[in-house]
Amino acid sequence: MERKTKLKVQAELNEEKNITYLGRHILAEFFDCTPNILNNLKLIEEFMTNAAVECGATVVQKCFHMFNPYGVSGVVIIAESHLAIHTWPELGYAAVDLFTCGESCDPKIAYEYLKESFGAGTASFSELKRGLIDTKNDELIKVPFEIKTQI
Amino acid sequence: MERKTKLKVQAELNEEKNITYLGRHILAEFFDCTPNILNNLKLIEEFMTNAAVECGATVVQKCFHMFNPYGVSGVVIIAESHLAIHTWPELGYAAVDLFTCGESCDPKIAYEYLKESFGAGTASFSELKRGLIDTKNDELIKVPFEIKTQI
Repeated sequence: MERKTKLKVQAELNEEKNITYLGRHILAEFFDCTPNILNNLKLIEEFMTNAAVECGATVVQKCFHMFNPYGVSGVVIIAESHLAIHTWPELGYAAVDLFTCGESCDPKIAYEYLKESFGAGTASFSELKRGLIDTKNDELIKVPFEIKTQI
Repeated sequence: MERKTKLKVQAELNEEKNITYLGRHILAEFFDCTPNILNNLKLIEEFMTNAAVECGATVVQKCFHMFNPYGVSGVVIIAESHLAIHTWPELGYAAVDLFTCGESCDPKIAYEYLKESFGAGTASFSELKRGLIDTKNDELIKVPFEIKTQI
């Protein structure tokens, strides 16, 4: 399978700074979720897979694990990077990472889908830019990620 | 398998603010890595698995994928959360996430191990706190992650 990411494929380009980036990484915190959903491996796998498809990604591999007595961890590897989740049903909390590359998918759609699917009463959304590139010479800038938005 | 994370298991506690957290999430950027390593699925899987073991984590599942013509994506699910990687051999770049819960492992050790294994000339390290908890009432604080360190 061809990876759907290439240099300068990001639609959003900071023209002023001449900077683009390889990946969008959303760190999501879902609070007050339905505990029974967060403790159901089958449902979590279904929702995470649906989230990938809904946001336009191509699923290539999946692995999910149920912990004793509670909690699910899982990852969907997509052609555009990955979606990962860790749940704490006892706290109604899930930490989710949505990392995508290229223009073909929008991780914000996956975020909204999961927020609704988990019945999250509150949620926060932070988007980072990973792999900053100087478009003047098409070279990576050797700095950490940059925070794009946080709500 | 029992998940190695419990409320207030984090050793580091901000006494002044009465805040602790569920997970440590390191976002690592490795630059100027050896391209042949970054394009070798077997080696990447080996190094990521070793990184988990070196830092004290317990591996529960793994999945890795090789892209055409180059690039590897992969995840190691550990009892303490996950390690994820995406490589761009053509740029000598790897974006790595090291997410751990509990006191039993230190993601900084995994970071140092991978930095050396990939022959990274430059690297950056950002540590986030995921799932902030108010220790006065043992309840989650409904805010985004907090940046602990960035170098």
